[in-house]
Amino acid sequence: AQTTRIAVTPGDGIGPEVVAEAVRCLETLRAKHNLALEWTRFPWPSHAWHEEYGESWPADALAQLKAYDAILLGALGDPGPMDDTNRYLLPDSISLAPLLDMRKGFDQWVCERPARLLPGARQYLKDDRAKDIDMLVIRENSEGEYVSQGGRLRQGKPDEVATQMEVFTRRATERIIRYGFEQARKRAGERVQEGRTRAFRTLDGRSCESQVCLVTKRNALRYWGDMYTEVFEEVSHDFPDVATHHELVDAACMKFVQCPWAFDVVVASNLQGDILTDLAAVLSGGMGVAPSCNLNPTDPNMPSMFEPTHGSAPDIAGQGIADPTAMLFTTARMLDWLGRKDPKLAQAGKELFDAVAADLAEQGNQQRATSQIGDAICKRLQA
Amino acid sequence: AQTTRIAVTPGDGIGPEVVAEAVRCLETLRAKHNLALEWTRFPWPSHAWHEEYGESWPADALAQLKAYDAILLGALGDPGPMDDTNRYLLPDSISLAPLLDMRKGFDQWVCERPARLLPGARQYLKDDRAKDIDMLVIRENSEGEYVSQGGRLRQGKPDEVATQMEVFTRRATERIIRYGFEQARKRAGERVQEGRTRAFRTLDGRSCESQVCLVTKRNALRYWGDMYTEVFEEVSHDFPDVATHHELVDAACMKFVQCPWAFDVVVASNLQGDILTDLAAVLSGGMGVAPSCNLNPTDPNMPSMFEPTHGSAPDIAGQGIADPTAMLFTTARMLDWLGRKDPKLAQAGKELFDAVAADLAEQGNQQRATSQIGDAICKRLQA
Ligand SMILES: CC(C)[C@H](C(=O)O)[C@@H](O)C(=O)O
Ligand SMILES: CC(C)[C@H](C(=O)O)[C@@H](O)C(=O)O
Repeated sequence: AQTTRIAVTPGDGIGPEVVAEAVRCLETLRAKHNLALEWTRFPWPSHAWHEEYGESWPADALAQLKAYDAILLGALGDPGPMDDTNRYLLPDSISLAPLLDMRKGFDQWVCERPARLLPGARQYLKDDRAKDIDMLVIRENSEGEYVSQGGRLRQGKPDEVATQMEVFTRRATERIIRYGFEQARKRAGERVQEGRTRAFRTLDGRSCESQVCLVTKRNALRYWGDMYTEVFEEVSHDFPDVATHHELVDAACMKFVQCPWAFDVVVASNLQGDILTDLAAVLSGGMGVAPSCNLNPTDPNMPSMFEPTHGSAPDIAGQGIADPTAMLFTTARMLDWLGRKDPKLAQAGKELFDAVAADLAEQGNQQRATSQIGDAICKRLQA
Repeated sequence: AQTTRIAVTPGDGIGPEVVAEAVRCLETLRAKHNLALEWTRFPWPSHAWHEEYGESWPADALAQLKAYDAILLGALGDPGPMDDTNRYLLPDSISLAPLLDMRKGFDQWVCERPARLLPGARQYLKDDRAKDIDMLVIRENSEGEYVSQGGRLRQGKPDEVATQMEVFTRRATERIIRYGFEQARKRAGERVQEGRTRAFRTLDGRSCESQVCLVTKRNALRYWGDMYTEVFEEVSHDFPDVATHHELVDAACMKFVQCPWAFDVVVASNLQGDILTDLAAVLSGGMGVAPSCNLNPTDPNMPSMFEPTHGSAPDIAGQGIADPTAMLFTTARMLDWLGRKDPKLAQAGKELFDAVAADLAEQGNQQRATSQIGDAICKRLQA
């Protein structure tokens, strides 16, 4: 197979520490399976780069990254020390901008965040309520609330007005909803292969193997809420085997807590998806295990980007105690994605997933050094 | 004291059932304390009214309601039977519109939703994590994401664009943030009176009795996010005794699950507040106990509106099994609010709160008939 090339961007805080373990796992897998896989490490985007050059990454960063098949990102954001008015020197809106720029620049229009409570992961919900969480939250990642349009009229004056525009196109709505249905069907197929089944009821009482739940706030934000609802209905006709469901975002958050097992695939807008994925992540073991995939499924010339859902955790950075589990699950998802072109990579991704899951099941979420966890997982991969 | 007049609007579904118990409690309290309190029941807004007249309430509804000191609302929304394309006949965006119209029409710019895990209430979080939840979520209720501005260009066409404008004014931002700080101070005072204390740390390391946490998504929605941040900082100078804190909305949802005890007063925008309050409600016992207050603290000629956070639950309506607890806590908050003009009402509100809390502590959330719960609480009030 043609060599697959990965851009590794460790970023800030604990990013470089957890990325180091990911790279060790990639090395192990490459040696073991003779994978046609290469990677290049970039010192940006990062706070350090910003300190030196006054911006988070070089002007041609996107053009450089475009040459790769995928981007593996550690974590962004390091507020730096506070200044003497107790304000951080580098606000999130600057240090995290490259994340949004990559999503936009490479049209990574899907943000996919699986939430499944694996054995050993931390449970926050009582009564094993979280035990059967197995959902895939699919977030529209290219427009909506995140278009950065708007402004501040009479900034700082008592009669200031700040506006923020939400822009939704039917085209992007259709593709994300269709993607959701396709994933639901695919997941049902995988479950059948694994000998598991789930049952979801359609509105007219039939039972289906999979479900898509559309989340909106159409009772208050009705313009795009209505459009989402109509497109959802239209697309659903192409998937009679998939049950459909709608929740308002506030009720969805509640139900994530009350009956997380009732969800399969969840499709939501950019902002609402952001909120739902954080909630789903914490319910299914916390940030320590949650991967995040920013995908462009349509244009093979655009790299997709993989990052753990967690942040750069500056408070524990540099101590060698960050848990690399989420980063490694993320790496496994990346390999699975790259396996679309090179099936050996998908196989390696599955091995990595299994090794990380086995380690989690055995060790639980007890405190271990970052490298100790990496060691244990590499050993499993070699076995 | 001058007679206080309440407009009672039972609404749809379980609304009339739970409101009936609220009215019985009000009768009991009025008789016991000879309260100067009157109420009038309205058959609207409701689905039934809509069926008869083609709209949820009469054209002069707001003018009629304006004559009252407060509005006590059961629940709105009754989708009615589904039509033969499996669509509900009366969508939420129509049946719930009066809620938004009242908030707007009476400039109820504060939506206040306390979340405190009372003994007997249902716990969803493990390890007694929810035990010390005692927060007040204050939602901006007059603008922001809920201004209903926007539209659909080329509706239904493949190149459709739907827009939704968010509009935030510095004036409304300042008043809601200031209100948040005032409530934090007031809560700290009440805790001292009850012999309880809490400690929150300021950015410069001092310890405070109370805290306000501002929630935004300023790293992605930066125009109003920045304005909120600046106003928060300005107003905080008037409250050096209150610690301040900021969370992004996605992280806030996570932390509500991970460390709900760390929050005191939370101030959020209209949509983000909507999401956070549902989540806070479910974590502190569920919809069965959560009150919601839509307040106009500045204009005494505008009635405030009190409703349980739960919906009309059409699936269990008419069976006499709806739990009136949230409605009764809501009624207690209403009396407390009306106590600003007539202290006897505040005293009655406290009695009602104590009776409902005692019933909850004794009976937990076991299934009882609606009227049985009402009976038990009225008996306590008479004792
Ligand atoms: C950093 C921030 C802009 C980002 C987002 O909101 O998309 C993050 O929360 C995420 O979920 O990836
Ligand atoms: C019914 C709906 C419009 C409303 C809102 O979003 O404000 C409800 O969810 C609430 O929280 O009171």
